[in-house]
Amino acid sequence: MSEVSRRRVFGLAGAGAALVGAGAAGVGIDRALGTNTAAAATDIVPFTGARQAGIVTPAQEHLHFAALDVTTKDRAALVSLLKTWTGAARRMTAGREVGMSGAVGGAKAAPPDDTGEALDLPASALTLTIGFGPSLFDGRFGLASRRPAALTDLPAFPKDNLDPARSGGDLCIQACANDPQVAVHAVRNLVRLGFGKTEVRWSQLGFGRSSSTSTTQSTPRNLFGFKDGTNNLKAEESSALDEHVWVTETDDQPWLAGGSYLVARRIRMHIETWDRTSLDEQEKIVGRAKGSGAALGQNAEFDPVDLHVGGADGEPMIPADSHIRLAAAESLNGVKILRRGYNFVDGSDGVGHLEAGLFFIAFNRDPGKQYIPMQNALSAKDTMMEYVQHTGSALFAVPPGVSETGYWGDSLFGQ
Amino acid sequence: MSEVSRRRVFGLAGAGAALVGAGAAGVGIDRALGTNTAAAATDIVPFTGARQAGIVTPAQEHLHFAALDVTTKDRAALVSLLKTWTGAARRMTAGREVGMSGAVGGAKAAPPDDTGEALDLPASALTLTIGFGPSLFDGRFGLASRRPAALTDLPAFPKDNLDPARSGGDLCIQACANDPQVAVHAVRNLVRLGFGKTEVRWSQLGFGRSSSTSTTQSTPRNLFGFKDGTNNLKAEESSALDEHVWVTETDDQPWLAGGSYLVARRIRMHIETWDRTSLDEQEKIVGRAKGSGAALGQNAEFDPVDLHVGGADGEPMIPADSHIRLAAAESLNGVKILRRGYNFVDGSDGVGHLEAGLFFIAFNRDPGKQYIPMQNALSAKDTMMEYVQHTGSALFAVPPGVSETGYWGDSLFGQ
Repeated sequence: MSEVSRRRVFGLAGAGAALVGAGAAGVGIDRALGTNTAAAATDIVPFTGARQAGIVTPAQEHLHFAALDVTTKDRAALVSLLKTWTGAARRMTAGREVGMSGAVGGAKAAPPDDTGEALDLPASALTLTIGFGPSLFDGRFGLASRRPAALTDLPAFPKDNLDPARSGGDLCIQACANDPQVAVHAVRNLVRLGFGKTEVRWSQLGFGRSSSTSTTQSTPRNLFGFKDGTNNLKAEESSALDEHVWVTETDDQPWLAGGSYLVARRIRMHIETWDRTSLDEQEKIVGRAKGSGAALGQNAEFDPVDLHVGGADGEPMIPADSHIRLAAAESLNGVKILRRGYNFVDGSDGVGHLEAGLFFIAFNRDPGKQYIPMQNALSAKDTMMEYVQHTGSALFAVPPGVSETGYWGDSLFGQ
Repeated sequence: MSEVSRRRVFGLAGAGAALVGAGAAGVGIDRALGTNTAAAATDIVPFTGARQAGIVTPAQEHLHFAALDVTTKDRAALVSLLKTWTGAARRMTAGREVGMSGAVGGAKAAPPDDTGEALDLPASALTLTIGFGPSLFDGRFGLASRRPAALTDLPAFPKDNLDPARSGGDLCIQACANDPQVAVHAVRNLVRLGFGKTEVRWSQLGFGRSSSTSTTQSTPRNLFGFKDGTNNLKAEESSALDEHVWVTETDDQPWLAGGSYLVARRIRMHIETWDRTSLDEQEKIVGRAKGSGAALGQNAEFDPVDLHVGGADGEPMIPADSHIRLAAAESLNGVKILRRGYNFVDGSDGVGHLEAGLFFIAFNRDPGKQYIPMQNALSAKDTMMEYVQHTGSALFAVPPGVSETGYWGDSLFGQ
């Protein structure tokens, strides 16, 4: 039987959707599975590489994030699933269907190999990134001694209001794409392949990437209406990424070398209250001008932030309790993180408001030295905390990338 | 003060996002407020016209739908809000900020006129469509005698499992756009302008339009992986639209002439069960081939459906309990509807599955003669009902379009 290509019935809708994103110079090319060296000008982001894709990949427009619990107690079954997932991820990120017989081939009497809703759609820059939560190392799978010291549940931060049903997880899958249907299809099919071994613990859709992760991207806006991520780490800053994002062999668990830690925080924004706040107050809370994104006291978005500029009243232009001051590397002994979050609206809250906010994702090399002190400072002092509430929380160790013959987590579980 | 244009800081992200959709031949053009005659090749869909936009407009890629309850008891306050909303909708659908001073102009000591998250983004083919629910005619606003006979709560259908918190509403706003951030921005700002007069009752995001509404569009796929809407009514079929979608002056309430009825049904799909069903069974349930979308017994998607073709076993190729047979005009005394739904994934269901499905939207001229008999047939006999559950329901009367000097609902409330 000849292999089914997902592009067979490539239509207008798919062609349009694929043009989103600065990196997508061509679409609809069905090519052999790519490696890092074969990126070329397509909408395919290579799956194979020393690092997982989806971390410094220029942030796509849409997110589907899922946290799963492992329900099997059998280590071999888990490893088998990770191998199956890797094969499926190789194919889906290349714009192909999950299995060789796809959604419409194979035996009519059997369930299809692929669920089919991404038939006709291009790869859409899909990336799939996996992470392992602290609970995976609890002893069920013989991994207790392999737990990195930094991989523990995040501490309770001031003003946290966490929903256990939106927190934690043994595993996570981050699917990013320029078409939400492609991201949803990828997560849905991995979940399907995990039937009987894993269950979805929680899941989150996001849109309108709320950070840029590359100098090739313009800075997007969050649901407070402000540019977000102007001073984010960028894919092009390789030495800063080495310092702040990538775990190395000198860190405590060699299997995580080339990986990172993913912090996920579901941040509900009280947009109705924010919208009744004056422009002046909004800008002082953020520390930037709403229109240009320039730091207060500066003229343009990318003018360097100067925390010491004084205003007419003798107070600093960027107030002591403003967000960008508290989050600045200068205020945090040089700490930086790579943010990669998305805006969300999850219906309404039952008392007359939209349930909207920011699904915050950040990658960092050591959350104990980076995210945790940063969030402690923000939760304690940031005026913005009056307008937000953290309702979900999770931490995952993100293993290194996958070779052409490897599988997700092989440095942890063994070849 | 000069007027603030939303396009001032037009960046790569916006430019990319605007290219989605077959109708978007040009982007980023900040032009005067358009009328139906000035559509041209932009991503602006004219707001003004005899019909509301967002019904036969080629379905955009993203939806934000909100149902609101009116909390004021003052008819004049409601009319004032409808006028305010109309002005805001004229501006936002033209790619502008809500108010003359926008998100960053005006007095620093006042809240901005616009929430700002769509700054830098083009119009993205935004349409805003308003509807009035049965409860609006309950007497609070002197409208009891103006209620169309067909505007009552939908009856209980077999197997319904409706959540009151996802059903009903005095008003609805349907925002469709090719960028979800633009759709969300529009709903959020209308909700903001309604503060103290209306509250959000429920809201739903959708992606991956699950029907085409124009012959210029390819047929998208729903989360069962099947093409959906092949035989949908299309914008180009004006006489069929007159027959099946548009209310006329000869119907019972002249104020609704040129309008329609919007049926909203939140349909949870049990995708995990579906995914374990054989391809053969899936195709018999739908009545179409999964790959091509051809009706069973035919070769290509748009080959006319023939309900009488027999198979080798003497049974009809399209089974008696298949979806397309039961929903066919031939089975329903010629009844047709205009579907305009979207796929959704709302996180997870708390017991290990994705909370996924179809947010069904349909427009019809008389739900009592069209949607209700159709859904009664489907709910009673459709094998697909084993895989879906209707969890939300609402019906709205959609008033006619707005003139350059009119406002939403002026034919009901008076000039």
